[in-house]
Amino acid sequence: MSLYLDDLKAGQRYETKSRTVTEAEIIAFAKEFDPQYYHVDPLKAQSSAFGGLIASGFHTLSLSMRLFFDLDLWPDAIIASPGMEQVKWLKPMRPGDTIRAAADVIEVRVSSSKPDRGVVVMDHPCWNQHDEMILTLRCAHMLRRRKAAGA
Amino acid sequence: MSLYLDDLKAGQRYETKSRTVTEAEIIAFAKEFDPQYYHVDPLKAQSSAFGGLIASGFHTLSLSMRLFFDLDLWPDAIIASPGMEQVKWLKPMRPGDTIRAAADVIEVRVSSSKPDRGVVVMDHPCWNQHDEMILTLRCAHMLRRRKAAGA
Repeated sequence: MSLYLDDLKAGQRYETKSRTVTEAEIIAFAKEFDPQYYHVDPLKAQSSAFGGLIASGFHTLSLSMRLFFDLDLWPDAIIASPGMEQVKWLKPMRPGDTIRAAADVIEVRVSSSKPDRGVVVMDHPCWNQHDEMILTLRCAHMLRRRKAAGA
Repeated sequence: MSLYLDDLKAGQRYETKSRTVTEAEIIAFAKEFDPQYYHVDPLKAQSSAFGGLIASGFHTLSLSMRLFFDLDLWPDAIIASPGMEQVKWLKPMRPGDTIRAAADVIEVRVSSSKPDRGVVVMDHPCWNQHDEMILTLRCAHMLRRRKAAGA
């Protein structure tokens, strides 16, 4: 079962499962990709603007999208993602937080140059266990069309 | 030594060191955050639109920003990054690629509500060893002002 571009319509929402993140995971990601003190040093982080350790924004982003990828909406149709807009880190992700995300179809466009494919634009909001939105972004996903797949 | 908001002017460019990424690193990141087949399965990836294993775009993004964070431009001034715009995955990052990045100051704005701080908007292009731009994005970084720091 795989969705194709033709199956997506503006207004559809897909909801992910939730996932709890640990302090160890936050520090491990940050040591590899974003070793600023408020992402890797719990003690020193107490003096930051956030009053404690917070995840790298790139960790929040990657983990939120992992929840989305786990929906496995379009394994046979996905070609690539050309890019993102409006990435907003609204609240920090902290140790012990349980996050969940959604994917809202904003727009579906068939390619004018390659009519066997097109782009679905989705908003990807992410919330913590307090129902606070911590991240949102708009991502384009390039998908094959169903007709092409059956041709 | 730390830069403050006051030290940044449109037109400045900062260049990062380079970093080579391995197939093992690409697969490890993808297993954790983006387990689509063309990021985790070298054999099956040969049938993808890219003809081989490629890194998750979130890996390319995180590693490119790691190169930027290693410049450690503003350890005493950074408050947070509110968000990104215009994230464009232009080419895939492949096993063995050596990437480097730059940070170009686009705009510097003092906060009207909190005059001890402001935002620097930067473009963050990233290239591979063939001098092909593989990623670009525009990121806002909220920084303290030097005067506030000395007050």
